[in-house]
Amino acid sequence: MSKLFVIGMGPGDLDLVTPKALSALKASSDMVAYGYYLDLLGEICDGKQHHDLPLGEEIGRARLALNLAASGKTTALISSGDIGIYAMATLVFELLDQQLQGNESHPEWLNVDIEVVPGISAMQAGASRVGAMLGHDFCTISLSDLLTPWETIDKRIHAAGEGDFVVSFYNPVSRKRDWQLNHARDVLLQYRPASTPVMIGRQLTRPEEDITFTTLGELDARQVDMFTMVSVGNSESRHIVNSSKHWIYTPRGYSKKL
Amino acid sequence: MSKLFVIGMGPGDLDLVTPKALSALKASSDMVAYGYYLDLLGEICDGKQHHDLPLGEEIGRARLALNLAASGKTTALISSGDIGIYAMATLVFELLDQQLQGNESHPEWLNVDIEVVPGISAMQAGASRVGAMLGHDFCTISLSDLLTPWETIDKRIHAAGEGDFVVSFYNPVSRKRDWQLNHARDVLLQYRPASTPVMIGRQLTRPEEDITFTTLGELDARQVDMFTMVSVGNSESRHIVNSSKHWIYTPRGYSKKL
Repeated sequence: MSKLFVIGMGPGDLDLVTPKALSALKASSDMVAYGYYLDLLGEICDGKQHHDLPLGEEIGRARLALNLAASGKTTALISSGDIGIYAMATLVFELLDQQLQGNESHPEWLNVDIEVVPGISAMQAGASRVGAMLGHDFCTISLSDLLTPWETIDKRIHAAGEGDFVVSFYNPVSRKRDWQLNHARDVLLQYRPASTPVMIGRQLTRPEEDITFTTLGELDARQVDMFTMVSVGNSESRHIVNSSKHWIYTPRGYSKKL
Repeated sequence: MSKLFVIGMGPGDLDLVTPKALSALKASSDMVAYGYYLDLLGEICDGKQHHDLPLGEEIGRARLALNLAASGKTTALISSGDIGIYAMATLVFELLDQQLQGNESHPEWLNVDIEVVPGISAMQAGASRVGAMLGHDFCTISLSDLLTPWETIDKRIHAAGEGDFVVSFYNPVSRKRDWQLNHARDVLLQYRPASTPVMIGRQLTRPEEDITFTTLGELDARQVDMFTMVSVGNSESRHIVNSSKHWIYTPRGYSKKL
């Protein structure tokens, strides 16, 4: 049976790539990935046949990975972060589902042994770099309305506000999308204070990492680009300062006992 | 400056422990951890001074870690999963905050260099084992009302339903808590179909791993214990079967383009 590894390579720091991800990559002869991620990984990709398609060609990339694996090549479909979180893994199974329903003509895909390897996601990288932002109930919302109707996204931001979840925004802005993050901020301000701590984490765990501590009231999409993760605390999250060191944590509720 | 590593060791499979976690552990002379996790880790803990306190003594464990580090011993406070997600990291910063506010008498804590190392959390382990359950917006809710008022938890379950988030329930049951999960199921059933796919993942990625595929309508707390993660799909999540292989994925919205 041919094999397709679907691998999350973590946020960027090679020390956050799991041994499982690394050995899956090593076992593969062929690799399907957006080129930028490969630059981060460096020499651990040496010797692999590299297949790429432009950003935006996600469906083509998932098809290519299934086709390569079905042709007998042990294949690694890779992404940064956790490939199961807003990334390519779901597309592989969506294509498989289409084949099972008879909407594709690739019965050979059904013989591919698929293994998904999780990775450290950007929200975790960010939370750990600033302390413990995800210490209590949280949610993630992608602000990209390319595939999801804006009404659905807007409903989720309201729900996040009502539930007082810590919120991590994936895809907060892009070159063509600049207003969604400020809208999300304004929605959350209906539910939690302007002083709520916010982390803006750019290129997390990478050499050019840049982390900004701000508040919900001060958050502005102009501070954010496509390489940035924005996490907003819940109404109890705290920004504390110990000498020059800043931290954000979300308490679990131990204060009664302290 | 003395050093405290706050380390998430992943769900159990040693191949999911990051190199960063491993080297932080290696660099430590002293280790504070609940014994059960150490059994999972095996020999990588050999040679460390092991400090433990019973389950439930989380505050004591965080204090102990800060005290050891402040006394000059490079210390590792460890947990399974991601220590930043419903785990010990937040308590370390809560104690630090108390000290900064003058409510503790441990100024030496302020000289400890704290570094948090994230890990693969149970929801990620579960999602990857069944395919791509976290492919779109999701939230996590702890069902433990030991520290959080039940009203807050209940509000969050309703918000998760309204937002149609994929929901991962942490601490779904315990010996003393057996009704919360069924209540959560009944709340979610007000918002999404009884046919919604559910994963019950016990001892994920460990030798005794056991995964059950069920539906929201069939979910029953009697199927669940303290070593179990329960993830509920959103209204679009799909359970598919390819020969004997079961998968759950949450589509991202590519279907329009397929």
